[in-house]
Amino acid sequence: MPTPSLTDWMAAILARTESYLDTQLSAAATATALETLNAAMRHAVLEGGKRIRPLLAHAAGDLTGAAPAALDRAGCAVELIHAYSLVHDDMPCMDNDVLRRGKPTVHVAFGEAMAMLTGDALQAMAFDVLAQSVDCGVGARAVVRMSAELARASGATGMAGGQAIDLASVGERLSREQLEDMHRRKTGALLAAAVRLGAWSGAPLEPAHQQSLDAYCTAIGLAFQVIDDVLDVEADSATLGKTAGKDAEQDKPTYVSLMGLSEARALAESLRLQAHTALQPFGSRALRLGELADLIVLRRS
Amino acid sequence: MPTPSLTDWMAAILARTESYLDTQLSAAATATALETLNAAMRHAVLEGGKRIRPLLAHAAGDLTGAAPAALDRAGCAVELIHAYSLVHDDMPCMDNDVLRRGKPTVHVAFGEAMAMLTGDALQAMAFDVLAQSVDCGVGARAVVRMSAELARASGATGMAGGQAIDLASVGERLSREQLEDMHRRKTGALLAAAVRLGAWSGAPLEPAHQQSLDAYCTAIGLAFQVIDDVLDVEADSATLGKTAGKDAEQDKPTYVSLMGLSEARALAESLRLQAHTALQPFGSRALRLGELADLIVLRRS
Repeated sequence: MPTPSLTDWMAAILARTESYLDTQLSAAATATALETLNAAMRHAVLEGGKRIRPLLAHAAGDLTGAAPAALDRAGCAVELIHAYSLVHDDMPCMDNDVLRRGKPTVHVAFGEAMAMLTGDALQAMAFDVLAQSVDCGVGARAVVRMSAELARASGATGMAGGQAIDLASVGERLSREQLEDMHRRKTGALLAAAVRLGAWSGAPLEPAHQQSLDAYCTAIGLAFQVIDDVLDVEADSATLGKTAGKDAEQDKPTYVSLMGLSEARALAESLRLQAHTALQPFGSRALRLGELADLIVLRRS
Repeated sequence: MPTPSLTDWMAAILARTESYLDTQLSAAATATALETLNAAMRHAVLEGGKRIRPLLAHAAGDLTGAAPAALDRAGCAVELIHAYSLVHDDMPCMDNDVLRRGKPTVHVAFGEAMAMLTGDALQAMAFDVLAQSVDCGVGARAVVRMSAELARASGATGMAGGQAIDLASVGERLSREQLEDMHRRKTGALLAAAVRLGAWSGAPLEPAHQQSLDAYCTAIGLAFQVIDDVLDVEADSATLGKTAGKDAEQDKPTYVSLMGLSEARALAESLRLQAHTALQPFGSRALRLGELADLIVLRRS
């Protein structure tokens, strides 16, 4: 069977991701206390989103021969964490954003209290979905390790910790080191978790290969954020699907404010090359991870 | 060795719970992005709280000979979920409460955005702590099952779902069935999770014993809420450590508003007896669980 094109591969993964999330959120509906809560959860998760985290999980699964059904669970668990963070991040006490993926944000559509509960319920659902990996041939010990990884990537040491730094640094001029630390936690940790959970869903990785994979994660994590900052300046809201220019307006430190637009673009390009170098030990099994690194840097939204 | 009194047993469990939580939140501090976030997490979790969930976990561990170190993890994981829910519940968009356990609530002390992140980070930490049970001799398959149980007890099917019903039912007159369904999710699910996670930290339970334990959970879950409603009417804020009389003020349906004070007290007493009946198959191993059922019904705050 010839290797499908990136476009075809992505279309296939996106279709199964959407379908898996839809099924999970429908299954939840039958047991969910309140229709409104389920509607808000579906609003937050379905239709929209680049699904970069599930794509990374599936791509990383190629390295270790993981079963696609297991990768659905790993990828969607990370995506649910991402989705909950957006719901909470958009709320009035945080970014106060009204537009997300071209739709009203959850608190605009369902009210603030329901938005908070929606985010809380999606975080719990992520760990439930991940636990179901044991039903797809992933060893229980690996699942426990994945659960700890997801928790650390999401919590005070990871995403929530990064958001707290972000919150405290509005109007401050961070050093490049501080900015990197913030983004490594805020965005990088969860992207890395997607890659790790995908890889850990298959055969065990040798330590040297794990190190290579970690280097890839570091590179794409930073690249993702640098490009986010670039797009916040360059793109308009329609292309971006969210309010553009928010960072400058809120006086948030960004790579663009720190080093300027063309330097930031050059940094992203060098990180893209670092990601490819890190993948060399894996040979052709890392095809998709390499292509996703390109996609992260070359995307327009 | 003679069996210690309930008071001595509780003092010992409370001391190790406090110490375990303190250690976990100190360990987190060294890796946490921001001192403020860690301070807010400590404010939310430490010093205060009846720790009824860790007590239930340790008591249930007696049924299956679970290791105390494993029960620390199970009990504290549930307690962290409870603590996060209080932080979010107190926020202005929810109950807008300024006092909790006699201290300012987290959003009053640290701001709303930090309070939201604090709750989010504590939820993630709960799953991290639980995953560490594999280091205390609990089998990985049991830990995965416990993680799924905790997620379902916390999420849309459990606590968050119950809170969503609560939110939607302000000013409504719920039937007793609807009120029970709400509380089974909102409070009962997490109390049951504490009991189950405790029991599952030891040797496997026979199905018949699991059913008895589930009956115990149902009884104490409802009893807990009935008494909460009674205390909201009877106690003053100083004894309660939170603002009393909030339910009536917010026109929330309660057992007291549904059936009156003395009927509600009688219901709690009958649930207490049901709990004891459910424990009979376990004999003397269920001593502490029985005493905790008494405590739940006879408490004054």
